[in-house]
Amino acid sequence: MDAHRILATLEALDPLADLPRTGWVVRGVVPAETIASHTCAVAILVAMICDELRATGTPIDGERALRMALVHDAPEAKTGDVPMPHKTPALAAALDDLEAKLASEILTPALHRDWELHMGDSIEARVVAAADKIQMLAKLALYARQGRATGPAFEGMWANPANLRALDLAPVRALYEAIFTRAGRGMPA
Amino acid sequence: MDAHRILATLEALDPLADLPRTGWVVRGVVPAETIASHTCAVAILVAMICDELRATGTPIDGERALRMALVHDAPEAKTGDVPMPHKTPALAAALDDLEAKLASEILTPALHRDWELHMGDSIEARVVAAADKIQMLAKLALYARQGRATGPAFEGMWANPANLRALDLAPVRALYEAIFTRAGRGMPA
Amino acid sequence: MDAHRILATLEALDPLADLPRTGWVVRGVVPAETIASHTCAVAILVAMICDELRATGTPIDGERALRMALVHDAPEAKTGDVPMPHKTPALAAALDDLEAKLASEILTPALHRDWELHMGDSIEARVVAAADKIQMLAKLALYARQGRATGPAFEGMWANPANLRALDLAPVRALYEAIFTRAGRGMPA
Amino acid sequence: MDAHRILATLEALDPLADLPRTGWVVRGVVPAETIASHTCAVAILVAMICDELRATGTPIDGERALRMALVHDAPEAKTGDVPMPHKTPALAAALDDLEAKLASEILTPALHRDWELHMGDSIEARVVAAADKIQMLAKLALYARQGRATGPAFEGMWANPANLRALDLAPVRALYEAIFTRAGRGMPA
Amino acid sequence: MDAHRILATLEALDPLADLPRTGWVVRGVVPAETIASHTCAVAILVAMICDELRATGTPIDGERALRMALVHDAPEAKTGDVPMPHKTPALAAALDDLEAKLASEILTPALHRDWELHMGDSIEARVVAAADKIQMLAKLALYARQGRATGPAFEGMWANPANLRALDLAPVRALYEAIFTRAGRGMPA
Amino acid sequence: MDAHRILATLEALDPLADLPRTGWVVRGVVPAETIASHTCAVAILVAMICDELRATGTPIDGERALRMALVHDAPEAKTGDVPMPHKTPALAAALDDLEAKLASEILTPALHRDWELHMGDSIEARVVAAADKIQMLAKLALYARQGRATGPAFEGMWANPANLRALDLAPVRALYEAIFTRAGRGMPA
Repeated sequence: MDAHRILATLEALDPLADLPRTGWVVRGVVPAETIASHTCAVAILVAMICDELRATGTPIDGERALRMALVHDAPEAKTGDVPMPHKTPALAAALDDLEAKLASEILTPALHRDWELHMGDSIEARVVAAADKIQMLAKLALYARQGRATGPAFEGMWANPANLRALDLAPVRALYEAIFTRAGRGMPA
Repeated sequence: MDAHRILATLEALDPLADLPRTGWVVRGVVPAETIASHTCAVAILVAMICDELRATGTPIDGERALRMALVHDAPEAKTGDVPMPHKTPALAAALDDLEAKLASEILTPALHRDWELHMGDSIEARVVAAADKIQMLAKLALYARQGRATGPAFEGMWANPANLRALDLAPVRALYEAIFTRAGRGMPA
Repeated sequence: MDAHRILATLEALDPLADLPRTGWVVRGVVPAETIASHTCAVAILVAMICDELRATGTPIDGERALRMALVHDAPEAKTGDVPMPHKTPALAAALDDLEAKLASEILTPALHRDWELHMGDSIEARVVAAADKIQMLAKLALYARQGRATGPAFEGMWANPANLRALDLAPVRALYEAIFTRAGRGMPA
Repeated sequence: MDAHRILATLEALDPLADLPRTGWVVRGVVPAETIASHTCAVAILVAMICDELRATGTPIDGERALRMALVHDAPEAKTGDVPMPHKTPALAAALDDLEAKLASEILTPALHRDWELHMGDSIEARVVAAADKIQMLAKLALYARQGRATGPAFEGMWANPANLRALDLAPVRALYEAIFTRAGRGMPA
Repeated sequence: MDAHRILATLEALDPLADLPRTGWVVRGVVPAETIASHTCAVAILVAMICDELRATGTPIDGERALRMALVHDAPEAKTGDVPMPHKTPALAAALDDLEAKLASEILTPALHRDWELHMGDSIEARVVAAADKIQMLAKLALYARQGRATGPAFEGMWANPANLRALDLAPVRALYEAIFTRAGRGMPA
Repeated sequence: MDAHRILATLEALDPLADLPRTGWVVRGVVPAETIASHTCAVAILVAMICDELRATGTPIDGERALRMALVHDAPEAKTGDVPMPHKTPALAAALDDLEAKLASEILTPALHRDWELHMGDSIEARVVAAADKIQMLAKLALYARQGRATGPAFEGMWANPANLRALDLAPVRALYEAIFTRAGRGMPA
């Protein structure tokens, strides 16, 4: 066992506690949610979605899904958070390569494996991808109720179809519908 | 399924992203780590400890351990973080009752079950209890290396034997030893 | 004289300058008022209430009232601020014991005496208890006018009869009425 | 009684909770102590000095002294905190006039009277003037112990004889001596 | 060349990055824009106004104007930002003297010259004076759209004719008109 | 003239006032310098370097250099700041394309031209590129003197030869030498 490797991973991920989710800052929400807070909430949401899937007879590897959620933004501890709308195809590819490199440097081999798998097509990966966006919309809705997200800067987030993931999974769809309904908005096509 | 219940849980836990870990503020570390950041790091550490336990032949329910880690401080979303040294036996008992009540109000039934189990004697609960303190000491060591935790206020943390948990688990022991060794300190008796 | 005791008290109370009033953070007000800012405002309000009482012929020991106001939250420098609604009877009793212990450790004997007396039935203690809540409601009203306290999370504060203290004192009653009237709300029964 | 006048005073003073003590920011201490935190600490220190004076047979109007402490920086709620070393005689005179105008606008007549008296020669005013500087030096010493006030920028504060007030009062002298001794420094001439 | 003089200037100006624009804090906008952020925006606005003036045939020394913009608030690195409404004639004169002294201490001789000239009547100085206020109103409008500047505290800013500068310059007038029109307000007389 | 275009540019750049320079956060410096503060300081430094160049007979278009400095990080208002060490060749190329697109969207045509030219080989562009890194090292040195940049995380910054630009310009070389000398370090090869 390499205890120092484990502590080095913790230390490398530490900046997530202070790095903001850039999309909020760009839209004038200050102070903004950090990447670590987002990660924590996504993981808890993944746990609740797994419970729902199992309750309706769909098996899922909950441990894998939780691990994926916990490391999905790990490379941002070095690069910061580059908001999705600005990831052109060329930039996304280049960032993917960089992130893969950083993930292998930062994470233990096992967690690195979880990071690699999180971009795949398994039901676990799809649940994490959906939870990533559901949590963002839930946070947006909360900011709006708190009067912290008013104005046209936020319309694009509500209207972006790329924020809808894995709608074929019933609990995921139900969550999206609940968020949009409560906000008095329609889901984007 | 109750999607609104899930969203309500997310919303109830939201303050963890802004509530500080009181022990740092009391010792003059400002700005301080939040409860959500701490939770995120504890969960990632739990994942790495589970990997080590399995590698050495000790089975553990990783999903359960991760879920416990993610909700272990959930009630603090309502009460804030009351530092351990000030939890007298009477206060600890009263806080336990309050926390149980709040946990049942905040969390879904399944996550509430994980919260209840986290205070037990299972290997999962013990790993989470240890990770809670290992992460705290690792954060203290990092603050110290950053020049943010200098002075006598921090000696009590290094010297408190109550911060040592589950030392009978080899990976846990190895982590504590690595932290104390790197900090040039001896472990408390 | 023990100058070091006085300086030790100042140092022990220093965290009040950075510890947030938890109730605001739980409701999404970030950054939030600190315990020290709250204390400062309560003390100034106590001075103004004393002036009014005397103007209408009611004697009051202003010095005692001010000292009570200045130390009423002193133990929170060690424990943080646990919001009132979550102080169950058992928890309140246990916290009282802890606070008494901490107050005796933190404060000089004379200030400790003021702290003990602040929980009593004297007119001075009652004015401080009322000012504690009046200041909280005035801050809530200001946050609301600033657009920082919108939404259902704050209704409970406006509607909580436990926030009404010492209404038998005419200046106190007048202040509560002024706050509720300006906010366009009725006082809770 | 004018309850609205009292609430207006509270509201006018509210910015003291967010305005920084400029001298710390200029020297790179971020985040810095606020004017309200400073005021709270000065008032508590005044209470302790009053106790010492009386214990040694020197009478003092403690209520007056506390009220002076609580309002001594009130006008800064409108102007911010202009650091002392930059108050040239002409600027000090002009600021005094402005502050007098603002104090009469912000404060109730009774508190305004306390503000006016705080600049006088009474023992109460002298104790407040000394506490103002003693608290600043105590805060500097604490920042230094926390590793937040290192470097030449702070030497001027330790060496400035203008920070020594009312040394003829024995408890005041004892406090200054205790601070300088603990910091391993000599008092300026 | 004195490289150390240049570095000393950079260091002396460093606090502008952390000192808030006091007027926002006084009105409850927290966290508030810093003096450095304001300076950066004013300079960029000056560049754009220069482009417009030249496009319509009015020559202007753009380099001079930019340098004036960059140093116009330099002395505030030592004094903090004293809001305009409270600069009584006597205070303004005294502050001017202090600022002149500080500017000569902080800035290199060339930048000091720019600072002196910024208070003159050249077209460059007038553009900078206008940009200073236009940027403030644009920031106010943005804060308002973000829900961070609601309530009567801000009416005085919109209504203050002293915020209108150099209206005889067509691009300047057009900018003021655009801001007030978008905000649905009339320009003060 | 399009006043609204100018105001739109100001608004699009507004997030620079709140977005942190990621490299500091990754190394544990919190709170960290913002992109706007960095820009402001780089521009002032560019002004001083231009003065030195002219004093030694080297002509330079100061207005162009200042405009380049003011807009050099403009696209980061949308993407956040991705630290240099992680810009692999592929990522740098992709980011360049994205930045060019964002620059054309955010900036007026004239400022967009300055942005394009800032990446060229003119003496103006080279001075800005050097000032970008000199300011970063000067800030690092200041953080170190303030005790905020201690530990191995910062060694890489001091030792990175990519931080040395335009050393053939004598004032630039002198500034680098002054910084390294004062820090008691040697310049990287």
